[in-house]
Amino acid sequence: MNQTTSNYPLNSIRIALDAMGGDHGPSVVVPAALKALALYPHLHITLVGQKIEIEKWIDKPLANFENRLIIHHASEVVAMDEQPALALRSKKDSSMRIAVDLVKAGKVSAAVSAGNTGALMAIARFVLKMLPGIDRPAIIYALPSDGPCGRIRMLDLGANVDCDAEHLYEFAVMGSVLTAAVDRMPAPRIALLNIGSEAIKGRKSVKEASELLTEHQVVNYIGFIEGNELYSGKADVVVCDGFVGNVSLKTSEGVARLFFNFLKTSIKKSLWRKFVAWLAKPMLMEMHERFDPSRYNGASFLGLNGIVVKSHGNANEFMFIKAIEEAMLEVEHNVPEQIRTELAQRLKMANT
Amino acid sequence: MNQTTSNYPLNSIRIALDAMGGDHGPSVVVPAALKALALYPHLHITLVGQKIEIEKWIDKPLANFENRLIIHHASEVVAMDEQPALALRSKKDSSMRIAVDLVKAGKVSAAVSAGNTGALMAIARFVLKMLPGIDRPAIIYALPSDGPCGRIRMLDLGANVDCDAEHLYEFAVMGSVLTAAVDRMPAPRIALLNIGSEAIKGRKSVKEASELLTEHQVVNYIGFIEGNELYSGKADVVVCDGFVGNVSLKTSEGVARLFFNFLKTSIKKSLWRKFVAWLAKPMLMEMHERFDPSRYNGASFLGLNGIVVKSHGNANEFMFIKAIEEAMLEVEHNVPEQIRTELAQRLKMANT
Repeated sequence: MNQTTSNYPLNSIRIALDAMGGDHGPSVVVPAALKALALYPHLHITLVGQKIEIEKWIDKPLANFENRLIIHHASEVVAMDEQPALALRSKKDSSMRIAVDLVKAGKVSAAVSAGNTGALMAIARFVLKMLPGIDRPAIIYALPSDGPCGRIRMLDLGANVDCDAEHLYEFAVMGSVLTAAVDRMPAPRIALLNIGSEAIKGRKSVKEASELLTEHQVVNYIGFIEGNELYSGKADVVVCDGFVGNVSLKTSEGVARLFFNFLKTSIKKSLWRKFVAWLAKPMLMEMHERFDPSRYNGASFLGLNGIVVKSHGNANEFMFIKAIEEAMLEVEHNVPEQIRTELAQRLKMANT
Repeated sequence: MNQTTSNYPLNSIRIALDAMGGDHGPSVVVPAALKALALYPHLHITLVGQKIEIEKWIDKPLANFENRLIIHHASEVVAMDEQPALALRSKKDSSMRIAVDLVKAGKVSAAVSAGNTGALMAIARFVLKMLPGIDRPAIIYALPSDGPCGRIRMLDLGANVDCDAEHLYEFAVMGSVLTAAVDRMPAPRIALLNIGSEAIKGRKSVKEASELLTEHQVVNYIGFIEGNELYSGKADVVVCDGFVGNVSLKTSEGVARLFFNFLKTSIKKSLWRKFVAWLAKPMLMEMHERFDPSRYNGASFLGLNGIVVKSHGNANEFMFIKAIEEAMLEVEHNVPEQIRTELAQRLKMANT
């Protein structure tokens, strides 16, 4: 239960990590934290969780980290399959809850967890509250793309299974603000995911959201795109409801896995093929890396009064560092404040 | 305007092809028809469309086809971007309409078209009518999978953008019957696409459909699957609403394209890589073939009083033949009649 009293340097970034979250808990989170501290001298990390479990993974005295590493004991852990409502009500001393509480208290600027998504969302929403004018938080995630910037961002990815046009409109504004800030784009191209590029096709909510975006002109809205254009680089931010986004993201993972499985089967057919595959290894590694979801780890919860980043549950050290970096970028650009300001301005514009 | 009067042999199969449909019209449909006739001696084809356009692609007298090829003139064509309602109302002498009319009249047992999906659906529904007990038709399609059978079938793929639990339940029954018949499986494993494998997660309609399927036990229902398991071979038939199915299918196309684009870029980087890629060509071709959507061309409209198969709009000859073969299989197994019988029996079972 160490609380530092040192004055942070001006540009320091303080982040709390839920050390117990995810499939691997402290065995991944703690080594990732130590590596991130070595990489970023302005980073300060608070590891939240069972002190004894965390300390197992730290091989030198805390003093060696120049007060940049704090362990904050939390007696409870939210299980990966725990009901969100139950976790919210009964796990007030869980590592996940305390990490978010630290954001609320201003002790840190962001929380990162690889734990139960539903519970993290429920806790974040309850503790941090929504930004004014935002009805529901959304999950945004970066994915590989064939476009000039090499990535797209997609939201919502599972927080909201049913959305009306207003929600999709809010997602578009929030996604635009985050992408403009973090990816340094002046006017990210925003598209709505639909099942036909013509305005007459598709779901009612999607068509109505399109009308709202066209009418209000608050973001650089480029219209509908279909699933096959998702990775084409045609749009920078793709907006859809959480059910569709989640299915689309997971389907992509499934296709990538199918591809590599087919490849493995094909290579195993002969010794010659194994040799050719060995020759092709640098190319295959390059492919794998471009597709690798770990390059894009770190989903952000948008619309909250604070920064919360969700890491993939089975993230390894490398992936978890990516999630920490995503949180750092959002802190540097103060994304929630930007969303608040932009929303206020844009809503004013839309009303005039 | 030839109508044959010959007696068909017992196992002959008569199919009408919309010769004008798709991006390539008769230039693909007619050569595909001729090849299919050469492949299947029991196949009889009626080419519907503008006689003069069709004849351009036939290089020998019709008599050479032993009365197995008929040209049925139709003066109109449904455009690929035509509004379905308009096509239904005003294009009564279109190749698409006449092909479906021939099914209704009992002159052929199935119609195949690569034309406008919405128009084909509207026409098929209007002309053939729904089977008793079925509220809406659904589009079912086969996709590659990593499972023992090498393919899964998925529905709905775009006919119904919003579905309630009852619709999803009907889709499950229809998909089960088609797969049992065409893929010769006694009890295909049916799953509902959802965003979490636990019963508490996901959309209300999906959760309710799950309850119906569990309660009624009319199909071999195995529960929820997520997008990443779609191609794992865990299920034989995956059921979802048309919006989600369409997005998922098209996302898969997009990921496959992204993969081959990444591969091309990677190969182009050096002469040595080009050489290695040349060595690996048989493997890459094998991969491409397993992924190739053309292997799986031919989406079926289920729930109608008759067989209608939709080919991909930009199908080539090889792909169009696949769609003809799908129609032939459904005719051989009399799928609409089987659905009618099974539905009646299963609804009876469910009510007792």
